[in-house]
Amino acid sequence: MKDARMLEKQISFIRELDRLKSILRRTLLMDGSRNENDAEHSWHLALMAIVLCDYAAENIDMLRLLKMVLIHDIVEIDAGDTFCYDTEGERHRLKKEKRAAERIFGLLPPEQGRELHKLWREFELRQTAEAKFAAALDRLHPLLHNFYTEGHAWLKYGVTSSQVLERNKRIEDGAPLLWTYARQLVKDAVKKKYMAP
Amino acid sequence: MKDARMLEKQISFIRELDRLKSILRRTLLMDGSRNENDAEHSWHLALMAIVLCDYAAENIDMLRLLKMVLIHDIVEIDAGDTFCYDTEGERHRLKKEKRAAERIFGLLPPEQGRELHKLWREFELRQTAEAKFAAALDRLHPLLHNFYTEGHAWLKYGVTSSQVLERNKRIEDGAPLLWTYARQLVKDAVKKKYMAP
Repeated sequence: MKDARMLEKQISFIRELDRLKSILRRTLLMDGSRNENDAEHSWHLALMAIVLCDYAAENIDMLRLLKMVLIHDIVEIDAGDTFCYDTEGERHRLKKEKRAAERIFGLLPPEQGRELHKLWREFELRQTAEAKFAAALDRLHPLLHNFYTEGHAWLKYGVTSSQVLERNKRIEDGAPLLWTYARQLVKDAVKKKYMAP
Repeated sequence: MKDARMLEKQISFIRELDRLKSILRRTLLMDGSRNENDAEHSWHLALMAIVLCDYAAENIDMLRLLKMVLIHDIVEIDAGDTFCYDTEGERHRLKKEKRAAERIFGLLPPEQGRELHKLWREFELRQTAEAKFAAALDRLHPLLHNFYTEGHAWLKYGVTSSQVLERNKRIEDGAPLLWTYARQLVKDAVKKKYMAP
């Protein structure tokens, strides 16, 4: 009986997760066909974590890292996506996301809910090796999308290269070599007129 | 120089992965709004793995399991999605997917490519604890989608409950309790006329 109740809670969480597939980001798919959603982004980030883990600044626990990137955007089911150049939205983001985390992780059996909630807070605080590397990947990913769509979101929202460098410099904390790569990408983007200098 | 070449290969693999977001499945999102794609499905499966791991029939290595579910459908970038009730397609599937695995994992630096390719073959063979549990989740996931969309794909493709039970009985190998749950779901689906008996 207790087990059936536990499984019921887990299934209700799994069902709720489906809504992340409808939370759209500002970035387009790399072929430009449509906006990317948060679920796909999280999957792509997990694959980036697997493939790029050797670039992490510190030793990382891969299992914790994967769980972290897989859940990092779940709160956006309630709070919506925040464009990283939108400083106005940023102010309200934390409050909305905190409430979302309580509701959504609260659907799970308590012990599981607490574990994932804690991991999400760790991601937000960016203090541990895993959180810093996850944050680096989370910033590198839209750079790739914007580069391969010839600057779609950069041009649409009038983002300049100095804004991009400023907003993404946290990549250096988590993965110095990927920051070198990202800066080169931004330089190339300016040269190709994918963004303003 | 060697490092730059390595990163270039890794980025080209990451770029290629984006195409999985355009491979559509027969299942709809749970709100019925559109077809699900393989990237979202893989993300959802990874979360199911995290939340439901205690139901695995044998002890599992979570890190291997997560990597496995995250990459299990990558071959469909070339081979397309195969509907699990399409036995005709099934015959050609293996050959197409084998070629796809060689090409796509071959984009990576050799050592990484081999690791992921091996993990994909392991998933396909369904011999290890992780592969059996991953296969169970991969079958349970569309059952949930079809149930919550009031039998969309079951009714559209005329699938009967005995076909569903036959095609999904492998859930029992990987997760006996989830198989009990799945059988009850099928019973409820018949009662609600989401599928033919």
